[in-house]
Amino acid sequence: MAPTPRDALDFPESDRVFLNPHLPPQVGTADDLPFTTLTFATSLDSSLALSPGARTVLSGPQSKAMTHYLRSRHDGILIGVGTAVADDPGLNCRIAGVGGYGNEGLNGQPRPVVIDPSARWDFSDDSKLFQLCREGRGRAPWIVTALDRPPPEKQALLEKYGGRFISLEMPKSEAGRHQINWHDLLVTLKSNGLLSVMVEGGGQVINSLLSPSHMSLLNSVIVTIAPTWLGQGGVVVSPARRFDDGGNAISAARLTNVKWYPFGEDVVLCGQVNLSDA
Amino acid sequence: MAPTPRDALDFPESDRVFLNPHLPPQVGTADDLPFTTLTFATSLDSSLALSPGARTVLSGPQSKAMTHYLRSRHDGILIGVGTAVADDPGLNCRIAGVGGYGNEGLNGQPRPVVIDPSARWDFSDDSKLFQLCREGRGRAPWIVTALDRPPPEKQALLEKYGGRFISLEMPKSEAGRHQINWHDLLVTLKSNGLLSVMVEGGGQVINSLLSPSHMSLLNSVIVTIAPTWLGQGGVVVSPARRFDDGGNAISAARLTNVKWYPFGEDVVLCGQVNLSDA
Repeated sequence: MAPTPRDALDFPESDRVFLNPHLPPQVGTADDLPFTTLTFATSLDSSLALSPGARTVLSGPQSKAMTHYLRSRHDGILIGVGTAVADDPGLNCRIAGVGGYGNEGLNGQPRPVVIDPSARWDFSDDSKLFQLCREGRGRAPWIVTALDRPPPEKQALLEKYGGRFISLEMPKSEAGRHQINWHDLLVTLKSNGLLSVMVEGGGQVINSLLSPSHMSLLNSVIVTIAPTWLGQGGVVVSPARRFDDGGNAISAARLTNVKWYPFGEDVVLCGQVNLSDA
Repeated sequence: MAPTPRDALDFPESDRVFLNPHLPPQVGTADDLPFTTLTFATSLDSSLALSPGARTVLSGPQSKAMTHYLRSRHDGILIGVGTAVADDPGLNCRIAGVGGYGNEGLNGQPRPVVIDPSARWDFSDDSKLFQLCREGRGRAPWIVTALDRPPPEKQALLEKYGGRFISLEMPKSEAGRHQINWHDLLVTLKSNGLLSVMVEGGGQVINSLLSPSHMSLLNSVIVTIAPTWLGQGGVVVSPARRFDDGGNAISAARLTNVKWYPFGEDVVLCGQVNLSDA
């Protein structure tokens, strides 16, 4: 048994009980899609952060441990490039007992997946993620890009740590933005061995997944809400609105099988996207 | 005992228990301010409605009964003119056992208060509020206006039902909008006999009360959240942001003494504004 690092997190069994029904089954699904969980924390006014790139402490310490527990229960954790650039995230799992946190190897460490259509993330040996790789506390990322040939230096650095680029077709919108085909993306991740994927952010990724054409891909939604209003101008979770056949605005997405769990000062909402409504 | 109308609402004692600690004391406070409760229901993306004036069913039937119970526990219920114009609201209390709903008189019926700086609300004998007055199921409104002399026809109609205009100084902003001095407004309502006031909406009123200069007037905040995203373009609750001494954006308002109560498919958040943070 390896020593447990001081930054290991404890998430007690009593708290795990409420989450377990909302987590991937321990055996994989027969589907060609991974079990996909969307999870994030917002303020009462649905902000993830005060501004893009601003590190904003929203939820309490229990919520942090919960996030790391959720990571231990998924094969992959996915973020958009905006979050990678802004946060220099570790994207590992620090729950006591997983590989690197009290155990040998990388057992229980999820695979970080970064959606980076133009391969603009300017990582280096000093990036937090690669520091953790060197310390045996996390896996190297897969970077999903629209480029057929990603920059060779980046590719070399990535592969040095055991990561890699995955090229995926992403047509551009009229505004010149890459469109993520979430179905193809998730199928690709499953075919590469990820039986479950947890999507963590940021705002663009979340709003895209909650849009009508993609939300059916979500198996589980877990949202932590903190009793704070961040105020106008934050990074807001709010999907594009939907319209009924008569052209009237209707609710963009509704959850079903809803459970609310008060959790410290915060509340945790677990549910599934209501597809009858979609 | 008068017969109980068919639209009377039942709110069971078992549900009242959790709300009671967050409600006005049964005896008044010594203060020159009324006990002031802010309450509203939003979607996960902090929208009150799909668009201004759109009747949007957000929360479940239990939440409706809760709102009417809360009304029975306050002397006055306050809305902005936008809501009055858009909704033609009844603003009475339909909990079984209050005056007009199984009892004689108007005992337990709150006083509707409408903030209408320019007296633009174009009410008539047909307005829902006055229908309820005629049926002995609600009180006539007080309309708070910045006009020294409100239109005489409106005044006559209002007074016919036992309502009245209350004139209050409201300086205009540079943009020409009336600014509500919430302190003076609430003091005026107390001096007119309202020991407790529940503020129900709409978006402008709520965001104004949650701004740094006013939020200390709130004794209690009760927010119902429904597990739905209404989508972009709704009527959003999100106060103006605050900045610290260094000019950095900080959380606009934080609640303390927070309790979350799962309530049907919704959750009810009760708390107080954290003034140490203000």
